[in-house]
Parts: sequence; C-alpha cells; structure tokens
Amino acid sequence: MPKPIFVLNGPNLNLLGVREPAIYGSETLADVGRRTQARAQALGLTVDFRQSNHEGELVDWIQEARESASGVILNAGALTHTSVAILDALNAAEKPVIELHLSNVFRREAFRHHSYVSAAAQGVICGFGAKGYELAIEAMANILAGR
Amino acid sequence: MPKPIFVLNGPNLNLLGVREPAIYGSETLADVGRRTQARAQALGLTVDFRQSNHEGELVDWIQEARESASGVILNAGALTHTSVAILDALNAAEKPVIELHLSNVFRREAFRHHSYVSAAAQGVICGFGAKGYELAIEAMANILAGR
Amino acid sequence: MPKPIFVLNGPNLNLLGVREPAIYGSETLADVGRRTQARAQALGLTVDFRQSNHEGELVDWIQEARESASGVILNAGALTHTSVAILDALNAAEKPVIELHLSNVFRREAFRHHSYVSAAAQGVICGFGAKGYELAIEAMANILAGR
Amino acid sequence: MPKPIFVLNGPNLNLLGVREPAIYGSETLADVGRRTQARAQALGLTVDFRQSNHEGELVDWIQEARESASGVILNAGALTHTSVAILDALNAAEKPVIELHLSNVFRREAFRHHSYVSAAAQGVICGFGAKGYELAIEAMANILAGR
Amino acid sequence: MPKPIFVLNGPNLNLLGVREPAIYGSETLADVGRRTQARAQALGLTVDFRQSNHEGELVDWIQEARESASGVILNAGALTHTSVAILDALNAAEKPVIELHLSNVFRREAFRHHSYVSAAAQGVICGFGAKGYELAIEAMANILAGR
Amino acid sequence: MPKPIFVLNGPNLNLLGVREPAIYGSETLADVGRRTQARAQALGLTVDFRQSNHEGELVDWIQEARESASGVILNAGALTHTSVAILDALNAAEKPVIELHLSNVFRREAFRHHSYVSAAAQGVICGFGAKGYELAIEAMANILAGR
Amino acid sequence: MPKPIFVLNGPNLNLLGVREPAIYGSETLADVGRRTQARAQALGLTVDFRQSNHEGELVDWIQEARESASGVILNAGALTHTSVAILDALNAAEKPVIELHLSNVFRREAFRHHSYVSAAAQGVICGFGAKGYELAIEAMANILAGR
Amino acid sequence: MPKPIFVLNGPNLNLLGVREPAIYGSETLADVGRRTQARAQALGLTVDFRQSNHEGELVDWIQEARESASGVILNAGALTHTSVAILDALNAAEKPVIELHLSNVFRREAFRHHSYVSAAAQGVICGFGAKGYELAIEAMANILAGR
Amino acid sequence: MPKPIFVLNGPNLNLLGVREPAIYGSETLADVGRRTQARAQALGLTVDFRQSNHEGELVDWIQEARESASGVILNAGALTHTSVAILDALNAAEKPVIELHLSNVFRREAFRHHSYVSAAAQGVICGFGAKGYELAIEAMANILAGR
Amino acid sequence: MPKPIFVLNGPNLNLLGVREPAIYGSETLADVGRRTQARAQALGLTVDFRQSNHEGELVDWIQEARESASGVILNAGALTHTSVAILDALNAAEKPVIELHLSNVFRREAFRHHSYVSAAAQGVICGFGAKGYELAIEAMANILAGR
Amino acid sequence: MPKPIFVLNGPNLNLLGVREPAIYGSETLADVGRRTQARAQALGLTVDFRQSNHEGELVDWIQEARESASGVILNAGALTHTSVAILDALNAAEKPVIELHLSNVFRREAFRHHSYVSAAAQGVICGFGAKGYELAIEAMANILAGR
Amino acid sequence: MPKPIFVLNGPNLNLLGVREPAIYGSETLADVGRRTQARAQALGLTVDFRQSNHEGELVDWIQEARESASGVILNAGALTHTSVAILDALNAAEKPVIELHLSNVFRREAFRHHSYVSAAAQGVICGFGAKGYELAIEAMANILAGR
Repeated sequence: MPKPIFVLNGPNLNLLGVREPAIYGSETLADVGRRTQARAQALGLTVDFRQSNHEGELVDWIQEARESASGVILNAGALTHTSVAILDALNAAEKPVIELHLSNVFRREAFRHHSYVSAAAQGVICGFGAKGYELAIEAMANILAGR
Repeated sequence: MPKPIFVLNGPNLNLLGVREPAIYGSETLADVGRRTQARAQALGLTVDFRQSNHEGELVDWIQEARESASGVILNAGALTHTSVAILDALNAAEKPVIELHLSNVFRREAFRHHSYVSAAAQGVICGFGAKGYELAIEAMANILAGR
Repeated sequence: MPKPIFVLNGPNLNLLGVREPAIYGSETLADVGRRTQARAQALGLTVDFRQSNHEGELVDWIQEARESASGVILNAGALTHTSVAILDALNAAEKPVIELHLSNVFRREAFRHHSYVSAAAQGVICGFGAKGYELAIEAMANILAGR
Repeated sequence: MPKPIFVLNGPNLNLLGVREPAIYGSETLADVGRRTQARAQALGLTVDFRQSNHEGELVDWIQEARESASGVILNAGALTHTSVAILDALNAAEKPVIELHLSNVFRREAFRHHSYVSAAAQGVICGFGAKGYELAIEAMANILAGR
Repeated sequence: MPKPIFVLNGPNLNLLGVREPAIYGSETLADVGRRTQARAQALGLTVDFRQSNHEGELVDWIQEARESASGVILNAGALTHTSVAILDALNAAEKPVIELHLSNVFRREAFRHHSYVSAAAQGVICGFGAKGYELAIEAMANILAGR
Repeated sequence: MPKPIFVLNGPNLNLLGVREPAIYGSETLADVGRRTQARAQALGLTVDFRQSNHEGELVDWIQEARESASGVILNAGALTHTSVAILDALNAAEKPVIELHLSNVFRREAFRHHSYVSAAAQGVICGFGAKGYELAIEAMANILAGR
Repeated sequence: MPKPIFVLNGPNLNLLGVREPAIYGSETLADVGRRTQARAQALGLTVDFRQSNHEGELVDWIQEARESASGVILNAGALTHTSVAILDALNAAEKPVIELHLSNVFRREAFRHHSYVSAAAQGVICGFGAKGYELAIEAMANILAGR
Repeated sequence: MPKPIFVLNGPNLNLLGVREPAIYGSETLADVGRRTQARAQALGLTVDFRQSNHEGELVDWIQEARESASGVILNAGALTHTSVAILDALNAAEKPVIELHLSNVFRREAFRHHSYVSAAAQGVICGFGAKGYELAIEAMANILAGR
Repeated sequence: MPKPIFVLNGPNLNLLGVREPAIYGSETLADVGRRTQARAQALGLTVDFRQSNHEGELVDWIQEARESASGVILNAGALTHTSVAILDALNAAEKPVIELHLSNVFRREAFRHHSYVSAAAQGVICGFGAKGYELAIEAMANILAGR
Repeated sequence: MPKPIFVLNGPNLNLLGVREPAIYGSETLADVGRRTQARAQALGLTVDFRQSNHEGELVDWIQEARESASGVILNAGALTHTSVAILDALNAAEKPVIELHLSNVFRREAFRHHSYVSAAAQGVICGFGAKGYELAIEAMANILAGR
Repeated sequence: MPKPIFVLNGPNLNLLGVREPAIYGSETLADVGRRTQARAQALGLTVDFRQSNHEGELVDWIQEARESASGVILNAGALTHTSVAILDALNAAEKPVIELHLSNVFRREAFRHHSYVSAAAQGVICGFGAKGYELAIEAMANILAGR
Repeated sequence: MPKPIFVLNGPNLNLLGVREPAIYGSETLADVGRRTQARAQALGLTVDFRQSNHEGELVDWIQEARESASGVILNAGALTHTSVAILDALNAAEKPVIELHLSNVFRREAFRHHSYVSAAAQGVICGFGAKGYELAIEAMANILAGR
C-alpha cells in the first residue's frame, strides 16, 4: 500500500472556523481535513493530516516524512516567512513538496512576500481558501503519477 | 449562456513544446489549450484561450474581458514582473483573476520573484507545468460558483 | 498655421467614464478630448488628441511629434513608471513636454512615485482629474508664447 | 463673504526676482503675489499671500487656515522634503491643499524627489515658474466649486 | 468575576535576578510577578503570569487568551523581533495587547528596533525595568475601563 | 523645593481636543496639562507644561531644563522623526528623559518608526492617549527616587 | 547557403542621423545597415537588418531567429533595461547573441547600467558608435567559425 | 572535577550519516559524538553532547550551561541565521562560546552568511566536516587553560 | 572698508564651555568668538560672530550675508544633517562658504556623516575643536585674496 | 613615428593558457600579445604589451601613457571592480581608453558587474576571449583616425 | 618529499607582538611562525611562512603556490575584505585553501564581515589568536590526507 | 630633536602641476612640499614629505611612522575610499593623524564620500588646494602642543 501524503499545518491554523466565521467561513480545520481526505480517496491516495504551533514539531514531522510519506503539502502559516529550519528539513526529506496558503500572501504585508518554503517546493497554490487543499491533492497526484 | 473564462498567455509561451521538448515536454500551447477546454467543459464552462507577445494586445484583451468574460486566468510570462499597465487593466476589469505560471518562479532569478499581477489576483498557482491550467480552471469554477 | 499640440494618453485611459462612473465621473475620454480642444481653441491653439495601450505606438507618435507638433502633453498611464523607451523618444523630440496625471500619483502605491517622464518634462500637473487637461493647455500656451 | 485662499511660501522664496534675474526672471515674490491676487479676483476669490523662513511659523499659519481659509496653496520650498510637522498640520487643517513648486523638482537632486506635502495634497503643479501660481488658483477654484 | 490579564514573558526572562544582580538588580521574575499582582489587586484586577522559552508555547497561551483573558501584556523578549506566528496569534486573540520591554530596545542593536508585536499592540512601554510591569497594568486597567 | 519636571509638547499638539473630538476625544491639551499636574502633585512633584510649533523654541526649553528641571518628558510630535538638534539638546541636558506619544507610532507610516528622541531617552511610552502622560509622571517619579 | 545574422535594433534607433547630426553624425540607420552588410559580405556572411519601436515585435523577430538566423546582434535601445520578455526570447532562441550599444551606457544614468540582455549574451560591445556594428559582425564571424 | 563542555547541535543534524551517505559520509551524529569525546578525554576534558530540533530546548540547554558547563560549542544549524533568543541566551551564559559548522556557510546561500551566534562567540570554525568538532575541542581547551 | 566674514553657529553651540568642561574645555563660545576675531584682525579682516538654535534665523542670516558679508563660515551643528533650507540659502548667497565642525563628525553616528552644507561649501574643516575657527579664517582669507 | 598603444593587463592574466587549457584554450598571454601586435601592424600601428599583478605598477604605467602612448587598452582583471586609483590615473592620462575583458563579466558574480574603469573608457568590449584584443585594436584605430 | 604548505600573512601582521603586547600578547609573527612549523613537523609536514604589506606580492605568492605548495593557509588581514585579485589567484591555484583570522572578524566593524577569501576557501578558522595557526595546520593535514 | 611630521601622498598626486595647469595651478607636488616645509619651520617643526602610487608602500611608511614620526598628515588620494589596510596601519601607528584632500570630495562622485581614513583621523581638511597643507601643519602643531 502506498505511503500517505503528509498535509502539515503550522501555527494558528487550529483557529480556522472558530475565529470570525463571517469572514473565514464556518469550516474548521477538521472539516478541511475531511475534505482533503475525500479528494485523496477519490484519486486512490491516503492523507495524514496534522497541525502544530511548534516549529520543532513541524521539523520532526517533515523528517518523519522522509521515511513514511510519498509527498508533503505544507501550509506553514507564519513560519513560511521565518523558518530556515523548515527549509533545511524539506531539502533533507527528498520528497515532492507543495506550498499552500489560504489567502494570497502576496497581497498582504510585505514581510509575507518572502517564503523560505518556496525554495524547496515544486509548486505553490495560494488564495483559494479551503479549496486549495483539494487542488494541492490533485497536483500531488499528478506529480506522483509522473515519477 | 454564461460568458467564457479568458485564459491569456504572454510573451514566448507560443514556443511551448517546440523548444527543448526533452525538458519542457512535447505538449504545445495548442495541446494545453485543448486540455484546458476539456476540463472546463467537464465543469460546464467555456474558455477563450489566447497568446500574444505584445503587452498592448494583452491590455486590450483584459479590457475586453471586462465586458465579455466571467473571469481571467493569466500566465503573463515575463510581463508578470514589469507591466504596471497589465495590473491597471486587471484592476479595471473587475473580474476574478487567477495568476498562473508553468514553473515555480520563486526558485528562479530574483527579478522573477516580484509580480505586479499578484496585486490584482485572488490566487496564484505555479510550478505544476501544464497541469496548472486544469487546476486553475477548477479554482475559477469554485470562485464563480461562490458568487 | 501653427502645429498642433499632441495630447497623448497611455494604457487604460480609454476606459475613462465607462468604469465606475460614481467615482471617476461620467466624463469619457472623448469628453475630455472635447474639453481640451475647447480650451486650446480659446487660446488660439489646436490639439491632436490620441490614446493607445501599446508602448511602441506611443513611441511612434512622440517621434511624429518631432516633425508635426508644437508640444507634447503626455498622460502615459502605467507606462510612466516603466518605459525608458518613452523617455528616450521625448528627449529626441526636442519639444516642450508636460507630464499629466488624473490622480495624485504620489499618494498611491510606491511604485507609482517614480516617473521616467519627469526627466524629460518641463512641468508636472497631477491630481485635478479632467480639469488638469485644461490647465496643461494653458501652461503649454504660456511656454510656447515665451519661446 | 467667503474665506480667502492661503497662499503660503517657505524658506528662500523671499529672494525671488532679486537673485540672478537673468535666470529666474525679474519678477519678485511681491509681483507674484499681485499676479495671484488678480487671477483670484477674476474668479471671485480672495487670497492671503505670505512667506516665512521659519518652519514653526508655517505650521502656525496652516493651523490658522483651519479656521480662516477656504483652501491652502503651499510652496514649502526646501521644507517640502524634510518637514513632517507641516504634513501633520496640513492633515489637521482639513482643507483642500495644492502643492506648488516653481521648478520641476523631479529633475533636480534626488533628495528633492520626495515630498511630505504630497501625502496631504489633492494635486501638484510644478515646473511652470510664476505661471504655476495662476494655475493653482484656477485648480483651487475648480475644487471649491465642486464641493 | 472578570477574566484575568495574561502577562506573558518570552525566552531568557526566567534568568532575571539570577544573572548579574549588580547590573539587573536582585529582583527575580517571581518578584516581578508578585509586584504585578499587587498593582492589579489594587485596581480590582487579577493576573495570570507565565514564562516560556518556546515560541510554540507562547502561541498556545495567546490562543488560550482568546477565551480566558481580558487582555494580554506581552514581553516577548527576543521573539519580539522574529516571530510572525506570535503576531498572527495576537491578531486572532481580539483582545487589547500591550507590548513591554525591560530595557529601551531602541538604544540597543539595530535588529532589536523592529517589532512584530507592535503591529498588534495598542501601546508600548519600554525602558523602565520592573516598574514597567506596574505601568502596563495601570494602562490596561484604563483600556478595559474604556470599553 | 525640588525642581519641576518639564513636560514639553511639539508641533500640532495644541490642536488636541479641538480637531475631530469624536476620534481624539474632547480633552484639550490644557485638560491634559491639568491631569498631568494632578498626578505629579499626588506624588509630591511639580510640573512645567509647555507647547511649541517651533523646533528652535523646543531646543531653547531643553537647554533651560539643564538648569531648571529635574527631568524631561517629551512628546516631540513630528519633530521626533526629523530633529537631530533636539537629540543633541537632550544629550546636553544630562537629565532623565522619557519619550511620549499619544498614538502607537509603530502602527503608522514607516517614516514615523524612527525616533531621534529614543537615542537619548531612558524609556518610551506610546499608544495610551492622554493616560500616557500620567504613566510618564509615575515612571519619572520612580527614576528620580532611584537616584 | 548559411542562414543570415539577424541585426535587430530597438526603439528610437530609427531617428539616427536625423536628430542632431552635429552630435550623432549624419549617418542614418540605413547607412549603418549598409556598412554592416559590407563587413558581413567581406567575411562571407549575410545580414538581416531590422528596427522596431515595439517590444512585442522584437520578441517575434527573436523567435523567428530561432529557425532562420545563425546568430543575433541586438541593440535593444531602451528596452535593454526593462524587458524580461526579450531576455526570455533570447534564451529560447539558442543562438549566439551579441549585445550592442552606440554609446558607453555605463557612463550614462544609473538606470542604464543594468541590462537584461547581458544575461543571455556571449559578449558586449559598446561606446564605439556605428563602428561597433562592424566589430560585432567580426566577433560573430569568429564565434560561428568556432562552432 | 571540572564541568563538562556542552556540545550542542541544532535542527536536522540528527540526520547526519543517514541522509545521502555517498555525499555526507557514513559517520552518524553518534559517531561524531564519540570522536568528540575521545579528543576531549585526550586533553583531560569531558563533553556533554546533545541535539534538538527545538529552539526553545536549545535555549533551555544554554541556560543550563550557565550553571553546569565550562564552555559551549554550538552548531546551531539553521537557527544560526534566525534566532535572537539563542544569542540572548549565549550572552547570559557568560561562558566561552565556539561557533561550529560542518560546511563553509559563506559559500552557500546569502541568507546563511549572517550569524547571530557570531556576536556571542569567541571564535568560529567551519568547513572541515566532522573534523571541525575535534578542532573546536582543542580550541576550547586552549581558551579554558588561558583563564 | 571690506565686508565682514559671517561666522554662524547653529543649535546647542551656545552650551560650549558650560557643559562638561573636563571634556570640551572651559572655553565658551564667547571665548571662541574673541579668538576668531583676533586671527581675523591679524589678517586685516573683520568678523560678525552669531549663534542661534532656530533654523529660520540661520536662513535669515545667510540671506543677509548675500548683501553684507564677504564670506560665510558655518558650523551648523545638528542642522548640518537635516536642513535643505540652509543649503538653498547658501547657494543663493553666492559667497564663498566654509563648513566647520568642532569634532570629527565622520567618527560619530552614521546620521552625522551626511552634510547638506558640503554641497555648497568650498572646503571643510573638522575635528580640531576651537582651533578650527582660526584655520577657517586663514582659509577664508586665502580664498578672498584669490578672487 | 606615432606613439604606441599601451595594452595593459592586470592581476592573474599571466596565468592565461597555463591554467585549465581545456577551458581557457592553450593560448598564453604571450600568444595574445603577438596576435595583438599583428592586428596593429596590419593597421599601421604599434603596441606596448604589459602585465602586472600590482595595482601601483599599473598606475605608474597609465601615468607613463600620458606622455608616451597614443591610447590605452586596459584589461584590469580583478582591479576593474576595486581600484579608484586606476580610474584617477586614466582620467589624468587624457588619452582614449578602451575597457577589455576576456569573459562577459555581466554574467558572473554580482561584484563583477560594477567597473570603475568604465567611467573613464570610451567603449567596452567583453566576452570574446582573445579575439577581443583584435577588436579593441581596430576600435582604437578608428578612434585615433577620427581625431 | 612533499611540497610545503604556504602560510601567507597580509598587511600589518608584521606588527604582531610589537604593538600593545598587553593586549595582543608578546608573541611576534616570528614566534607564531615557529609554533606553526612545530605543529607541522609533528604531523610530518613542512611550512613556508611569509608576510607582505603588498597586495601584488601576495598575488605573486599564491600563483607560486600553484606550482610549489600542497595547500595555502591565508591570513590576508585587511585585504580579506577588498581584494578580488586575491580571490582570483586563489581560484587559479587549484589547491586547498584555509582562511584564517586572529580575531573574530564577525564581532568587529560591518565592513569586516564580508570576505572575498571565503568564496575560495574550504574552511574558516577565526577568533583563536595564534592558536588558530596550529588548528589550521591540523585541518590542512586532515584535508591532504583525505585526497 | 623632535621627530618629523610625515606628510604622505597617495596615487596620482605626483601629477600635480603637470596635468592641466590652467585648472589645478602650476604648482607641482615639489612646490607644495617646499611650502609645507616652510610653514613647519616657522612653527619649529620638521617634515618628511613623500609620495607613492603603491598601497603597500604607504602601509610600510605608516608603520615606519610608528617609530619615527610625531604625527601623520595623509592625502591618500583614491586609496582613501578603498584601503582597509591603510586604516589598520593608521590605527596601529598610535600617532595623531590628519586627513587631507585638495578638493572638497563631498561635492564629487558618491563613491568619494566615504573615507576609511576618517575612522582613524583626529580631523579632516579638504577643499582648499595646496593651502590645505599649511593649515594641516598648523593643526598638527596645535595637537602636538596639547599633548
């Protein structure tokens, strides 16, 4: 049986759906996880969906992906812009990586325009909200099929 | 009948599939167009697929989209990084915009990291090659459905 | 009979009056052209009023101005900030140049604060909407009278 | 009777017409004042025309304008580029502001390209010498009429 | 009974009073905590006083504040200058935030002059040592009273 | 009898309470002065409360503080960001200095993030409105008691 | 018969010899073309000599060179400094490229010191006026002989 | 008995010897630890050798070194370039510090050229692979002997 | 009788000799003035020696120099680094100008390394304390003799 | 008899043809010298061909060129990017100067993109290897003929 | 017999031990040379130890190392930060290079943080005083053994 | 007998009086040397006056000054802006240093505004031509008298 895709979420994404539902929608991170699973299942894939506020824990998981995952979809939240450690871990993982953001970070504050994750990612998807998780699954399926 | 999605391609994208097929694949821009049409059709949408090497012509088309399109998917090629005129046209179009690139531009030369298109786009998809056009169609369908 | 003043308008200015009339007013570029003509006529001058979305076409017209115009009033739109080619053409034209903008570009995004046109212009008028075209005609009349 | 337009002049403008008449013309600041008055009178407006070399005195006058003027035309001279205090006073005045310069400051030294005044001004007129004062009066008349 | 004010301290603040008492004074972080409690009590308020060297734990606590605190006083130590994740958590908390530093960070190295916390804080107090904690409590009391 | 604390206010602060009371509150600078006096009196201190729009006059007062004040609380307004002369005067005064702002300047325009006053101040208080004057008095009392 | 060398000229070069002959000489671009042809003929080569003010047209011609030219000598004029699209086209052409300028651009304004063309050119010749076209032909002959 | 030298390793160094042995060698971090111990023993010293992916844990250990170590040899990995918290902890530790890297970081990406660790380190050794740990032990022995 | 040399002193120089005599010497500005007069007298020249904390007053005096002085020696103190108005006044004065500083400003903070005065000065003397005034007089005598 | 052209070569160019002949070719600097002489002779000119690793010696030679040469062709090697002394010497020489490089320096590291030599050179030739010396001789002949 | 290691010292290192012995120690460069020889001898290696104040002479020696040395240990002193010529020579030498500094240059002035030598060095050792020469010899021995 | 003052001149100053006498005057460096000697003699001092185009030779002389000179007056010419080695030598010399320039370097190209010499100099004199050498002697006499 093929290894799962790791879908990893960084700091504050656990607040999704709880905080300001009028703006961000009432979908929680758990809902997003189910939606991601469903799309994966439809494509014959499995997903391991996690969240942490700790940079070190995300590094641990990416290292784990080296052995146990077929690919990594990473929404690193605010750590996207500051963590060289995550970049090093991604490079060491030697798996296909997709960078994901709910909002279009390029239309927000200037310090969110630079991403350390990009340097290790095959592609980037941002600005499509929870829908972006489904698109990332399809993009990953396409990459894995091409190997 | 709903208005088509404009899928607009900028300078040098007409060389796709002709130049270095060992690297970029043998799929031409016409092939990509057909693939994009197919995905749209499956979702009940139509596409108007065009390419130009001329900044002014792209500005004309985006202005035309204001009247005649339901949304714009734009792979502006090198003009992504230099054209304020395209940004102004996109803002005037008052349609949902998706920014698209074949390669992950954030891993290329520094001058390709800044995009004028981003400031007018709801979302960005890059690094997935021709597959990105399909993902963009699905993302646009999702946006149009939510209106 | 004296040569006309060239009043040249760059990308997206053809949308004037069409887009968001509540904000920009219902005056179209054609209306502005008539108003500009009227003021010129009152001062004994003629005007050649044009618009293009193409940088190369604007360069062609500025070169034409070298032979056929008494002066150039240029609202280059977004090309103001990116076109060295227009700067070179203006320098080659050897005619008095007035830089014109509908809005006060210095209160907008930072990339609109730099103008290549300024380096070749005798004066700048910005922020007065369509009224600025009339002021530019009077300023040009004053310059031509002083020659 | 309507409140006058304050036309305020900053450091060194009192030297106008005295210094290098071959270059700057023999018109003094008093002459410019009379010319400004005349244009205002023709449009049914009055002008209060002043000059100071002292930043604090200009701030005092702009605060006075809050109560006693219908608008402010400001040629802040060298203080244009250094005075945040004038910017704050202009914002507090809550009157239409026009920024004015005799020369095209964008063709001079780089430190003259940035203006704190612009951030509070509706429009800018520069490079037309004393004629610019007349254009500014007409532009202000147009703004006041539109209120 | 009203919710407590969270007073959160970042990396290395646990060394207070232990390290170089001749310079930093012999007051430990526990002493500072008692002093902070006393001032709060005098104003009819309660305090929850914590310290961590882990960025992720501070994010967890700020998320907790969203439900359980009336406001947040944050001395983020070195994380002030690098943590976008803390900024995002503060913005999500939707509580009044006061930024606090023992020393005047603006007189130290240049990389300490920029604060991500400031972008989410109503006010800043720095340079008054342990006394600053008391001032922050009074400032917070004033903010809460004004709601 | 001990020397008074000089509380000095820079350009445009005389407009407090007059301008936009709905936003800034109806408290005038005179009200703030009385409040500051009251807090000082409660701590057994006296205050000399002044305002000027003139940089030179503020320098004169800070020089006077060298002989006649026990400490300086300075809200330099816009001169905070531009006046090296005030910095030099503060350094020459050889008195404790507290920097004060009504608003959190770090959330406003970028040019307000740099302060020349900070380089001579023991501490900074900003963002608490008129309340900040009271906090500054208490902080100064604490500093003077520690001498 | 071998393919010709494309000698491509950008915006405003059509004014050569017409504008200020006292300074730039009375040689027109047509004269330069004849001189270039002559040198090529002497070396057994042919030349296709063109000029355009339109960026898109230059991109079209460089794409054409991919099929129809043995090499490209490019004097891109002002587009040298702004056109990423031309850079991309040159890279796609997979032909030897020589960058050419009439004047020594490194002694002119700072914005002319950066060239996008250089990143795709084997060599650069600048500052020798029309003579530079002859030198470029000889340099290209040498490159082609070495293949 | 003298206190041990803390030899601390940051994120991703636990992958040493596991990842790409053809490139990085088959020596694991445990092997490096034994080699470091051996050199220390030969010089009459002991070593406490640790690794963590968590910035906060490294800060905890450096704080522990304040009481329990004679010196700190730190290979902070990616945190070298981003962690102000580690810098603060090192300064508080008041022990000799040696900065260590396996590779010559000055030949890698630009963001690896700046080190916060350097500001607290007596010396730096980089580029000698596992051998660098032995050199660092000898350098530390020399420093400790000189105290 | 020849016009005097204006020796003008800016903000805070009135504190000379009063503040920290152990460091700056016990010579007051009045003493320096007498010394300057003596050197001038020995060379057959007269001096007008003034000081002000007000930028506007210094501008007034430099304008006065235009009519009434043979040259200007200017120690502008902190205004050296911020006043464009003084630069404009010096250029308008059309007299030889010598820039003077007591200390070597190039060894102090970075913001003191840039001088607006230099752009209008024939020469600069700094770092020699009160002696510098004598050297400046001799340098000015030499310049005036060469006219 | 006319004065010779000085062809001066800077640091490390003496290694040409010795180091990595597979890459740089087996032509030594002596060979290049002979080729340069031959082209000069064919055009009726003579050449003085030299090399030094010492900046001071190159300055001496350029000073000598002032008296003894008709023009200077300078391949300054690495000193191109760092030597203001060579720039000053070239300006003092008052001879036509051609800047020469074997490789296209604009495609190498960023610190090689700036040239002090360019500011004193009439033209630049780079990227054509040893062939560039011949082209430089022809360009110099053309310049000398035009005098 | 194997070729010696060149240990090369740049400007001002000849003053070692002479200048301020209380700070730098009384060990002269000759002493350091003997210590370096001793360590080399213990490892079965020989050393050629030299010093020069002249950049050109250091370039000559590095070129000589190409033929006559097994490796280069370089303490380039101040030339570390300014000499591109030394970098080019090191690259041409095709020998292992170790960069050495007595002090930790990263804790000194900002202009000492950049090193041209690093780009050609396998490793860097700095901050250990004369001890660093011994460590460099051991590191070089390790490198040579691994070849 | 007291040690002489070293007056050292850098690259290209040997051309003084030879090059463009209409501009720089007909005084040669030898003339300037005699004038410098005369002023020194009048003050009871002696001078050692030298010139070199070689950085290394200037470093040698400054090292010699450590033993053999009472002070150093240095006109380093172009090396002022590039030589860290000269700065280090000046710091090691432990003698009073005066920086000297013939022209006002602050009115020339931007790269001449930064001086490494300033960081080691007590004072700076520039812009007074050969007269500056006399002023420097008097300033040095004053410094030496004050020791």
